[in-house]
Amino acid sequence: MAAALSVVGDPWTLLILRDAFLGVRRFDDWQARLGVARNVLAARLKTLVAHGVLETRLYSEHPPRKDYVLTARGRDLMPVLLALKAWGDRHVYGDGCAPLEFVHACGAVLSPSLTCDACGGKVTAADLTARPREAASVGQVMAETAT
Amino acid sequence: MAAALSVVGDPWTLLILRDAFLGVRRFDDWQARLGVARNVLAARLKTLVAHGVLETRLYSEHPPRKDYVLTARGRDLMPVLLALKAWGDRHVYGDGCAPLEFVHACGAVLSPSLTCDACGGKVTAADLTARPREAASVGQVMAETAT
Repeated sequence: MAAALSVVGDPWTLLILRDAFLGVRRFDDWQARLGVARNVLAARLKTLVAHGVLETRLYSEHPPRKDYVLTARGRDLMPVLLALKAWGDRHVYGDGCAPLEFVHACGAVLSPSLTCDACGGKVTAADLTARPREAASVGQVMAETAT
Repeated sequence: MAAALSVVGDPWTLLILRDAFLGVRRFDDWQARLGVARNVLAARLKTLVAHGVLETRLYSEHPPRKDYVLTARGRDLMPVLLALKAWGDRHVYGDGCAPLEFVHACGAVLSPSLTCDACGGKVTAADLTARPREAASVGQVMAETAT
């Protein structure tokens, strides 16, 4: 968990990723949408590329211009963003007051739930038990994510 | 999204919350499990109480001793934690190598998916379109979440 957090754990990064999911691929488009300082945006994009979440694609050689495109690793962050958004919508904005809403392909405003791939049932804390798979210490995990 | 991140946006906080979902309620138990410095743990618990994610319950008056229990607002963070864990398991540890696994009530090792409450279908980025609900600027959202 901490590893994923170290990738998305910054408000600007989260907004950059949100916009990437909405189709934004170019520096100037993020800059215009978010009003973020150019040096901050450049640093965040560089970090996301270093994490393998975005990759660059040259779309013009003269002058050199590049797009930033989500990788498979980056696309897999969508559930994290949606879960963060669902919590914020409910507990910060209040139901029905979020500034942005997603519409699912079925036509409904998205209200997402976590379900179990095996049985299809909704997942709540009461349904889960945890078991360690190996003796990796928390300290080790923290050290790994700090690199 | 940024609002939720401001609550969970720290590796220790995430581990404290993970253990809370696994039933940990007492200062000394977190301290022993996580090996976190006592002043760090105390500060994180205080912040989680201030955010309304945990609440304290006195379980002994002499001497005064308290439990920390997840609130409804806190329990609703579970999808965020599970989504972060699923991403880390897949992209940091590799499939089958995570240090901790959850078993769902159905008996299967949990592999969670996000599904649409309206149609029951899985949610992928390609299935979503976004629309603004109001003219709240990103700057405003950032300012709100910074308080």
